[in-house]
Amino acid sequence: MQTKHLGRQTLCLANPPYILAGGSVVGKKEGEGPLGPGFDYVCEDSYFGEKTWEKAESALLQRCFSIACDKAHLAPSGLQYIFGGDLLNQCTASTFALRDCGVPFFGLYGACSTMAESLSLAAMAVDGGFCDAAAAVSCSHFCSAERQFRFPLEYGGLRTPTAQWTVTGAGAAVLAAQGSGPRVTHVTTGCIVDAGITDAANMGAAMAPAALDTLKAHFEDTGRSPEDYDLIVTGDLGMIGRAALLELAAREDIDLEKNHMDCGLLIFDRNTQDVRAGGSGCGCCASVFCSLLLNGLRAGKWRRLLFAATGALMSTTSSQQGESIPGICHAVAVESEV
Amino acid sequence: MQTKHLGRQTLCLANPPYILAGGSVVGKKEGEGPLGPGFDYVCEDSYFGEKTWEKAESALLQRCFSIACDKAHLAPSGLQYIFGGDLLNQCTASTFALRDCGVPFFGLYGACSTMAESLSLAAMAVDGGFCDAAAAVSCSHFCSAERQFRFPLEYGGLRTPTAQWTVTGAGAAVLAAQGSGPRVTHVTTGCIVDAGITDAANMGAAMAPAALDTLKAHFEDTGRSPEDYDLIVTGDLGMIGRAALLELAAREDIDLEKNHMDCGLLIFDRNTQDVRAGGSGCGCCASVFCSLLLNGLRAGKWRRLLFAATGALMSTTSSQQGESIPGICHAVAVESEV
Repeated sequence: MQTKHLGRQTLCLANPPYILAGGSVVGKKEGEGPLGPGFDYVCEDSYFGEKTWEKAESALLQRCFSIACDKAHLAPSGLQYIFGGDLLNQCTASTFALRDCGVPFFGLYGACSTMAESLSLAAMAVDGGFCDAAAAVSCSHFCSAERQFRFPLEYGGLRTPTAQWTVTGAGAAVLAAQGSGPRVTHVTTGCIVDAGITDAANMGAAMAPAALDTLKAHFEDTGRSPEDYDLIVTGDLGMIGRAALLELAAREDIDLEKNHMDCGLLIFDRNTQDVRAGGSGCGCCASVFCSLLLNGLRAGKWRRLLFAATGALMSTTSSQQGESIPGICHAVAVESEV
Repeated sequence: MQTKHLGRQTLCLANPPYILAGGSVVGKKEGEGPLGPGFDYVCEDSYFGEKTWEKAESALLQRCFSIACDKAHLAPSGLQYIFGGDLLNQCTASTFALRDCGVPFFGLYGACSTMAESLSLAAMAVDGGFCDAAAAVSCSHFCSAERQFRFPLEYGGLRTPTAQWTVTGAGAAVLAAQGSGPRVTHVTTGCIVDAGITDAANMGAAMAPAALDTLKAHFEDTGRSPEDYDLIVTGDLGMIGRAALLELAAREDIDLEKNHMDCGLLIFDRNTQDVRAGGSGCGCCASVFCSLLLNGLRAGKWRRLLFAATGALMSTTSSQQGESIPGICHAVAVESEV
């Protein structure tokens, strides 16, 4: 059977790849959050044994990729492709993490949407018969992101209530044509959406219109509605972005109130952990997808899930030059076998 | 017929996509070089009518994408995907260029290998039946790259003889399942190769081992040898990197002397244009591929060509932290219909 392009943005995969396994590694703060027990590895040391935070970010992804391969009972040599990226300038966290693994590598940049982008392309590569197995990976680190995008940590700058907290974490998923596990059935690829938001401390607002755009396209293209999913999970809109999405969706008669969750709100307890509007960063929805969501699908807690990751496509330079913040959202539908 | 994975890294496409058209836009210096007459548009103004070099880079890619669509007789709405990226932090040149086009977008980061990476994924998307048409785009700008990676231009820093000159230019190719034009027949995806080079002013040396690795894989996987190609074009090793590649290849009994060229050496005249070891930047091989190479294939000058673009996967931060410079090289084989 041949995979079909539905409507404008969606693929209905004819040979839905199995997600054999997911690996998740996070930092101390994430380990102390509500999802702590579900992560494969929590590292107490923010340096992960390295000398810099950037090297720590690579180390955490390397560890995570290795765990995912182990859980999938595959050596890296059993993978034909890795799709991955991160937030650091020139995506060095992922390239340095994977420089010794000897697997053909497609580097991606989708900001915090990267995990859904990498899952999309890995699923397409497997579905298209281009490979037997491929990995999708992404990561972020609070300290390297703060240094790059905001202020030196030593400065102790106050964060606005709309700001989100970059997750120290990584996720890695192994997809394959044969095996068992939840399957990627649909891929909805996002267009860039610029709603004119310029506040770099309010990414949720900047990304919500992109999330709506992709979710709307997914429902139109597939003829499905929100009720067809046990769970619709965005990552990472946080509190402000989630509220904006729900309101924008309601105006279009899309009711997300019943079954919507956001990875940025799941990973931290906003009452006890000082994270302002919630978690963010490539590693947020990557680590949540590869722990809570995959585990829940495996256990039959959810049967059908829509994973929609959002990214803010800005840089410090673009913001300093007065530009608005374009957003993007990529979505994959994942179904449990159970 | 089903696309096959050959050996470790290569796909032999069962339904080789047509490259309907390529668009190329460059700056003044590139327009004055040996390939000047072949570019679609040469802009005398380094700002492309914008207020900053970063915005100029977006404007040049936007113009280039529009030219490619026009030449392919396709509106952007006729494309199901765009694959693209650039060198700027968080790839803002391409995301800002494409934020209004309304086409599903996969953001890539492969440093100067991005054009071959985007061609690879666009070809796979078309070959796999995921879409009828897709675009592959990339760009760079000398001034935005200097500011980001090296020194303020006003400082007037001297360049070492091994340094390369970032091309101000963009390339955009439109691939489709039906039509006419040169066809992408093989995709060889690179692994990251780190030979331990640490001199950020000698990218050619850092990337040459990656180029060899991918070329060697291509020849092994396909059973072809260099003589099977009318032209093997790397981009952008420059003078130092090309010499290194030829020597490293000779040690492995791969003779590239007869039919190897490098985009970084083609785009400038090193005798009359002060570019040290040659051109570089995502826009170098992107603009050369979409002008000289596509035009030559169309005209029957070459029948079969291997386009192998190399990238240096470093950032200023990784170099400042004493890291070596990993390289990557992606290759696509393109055949003329003539």
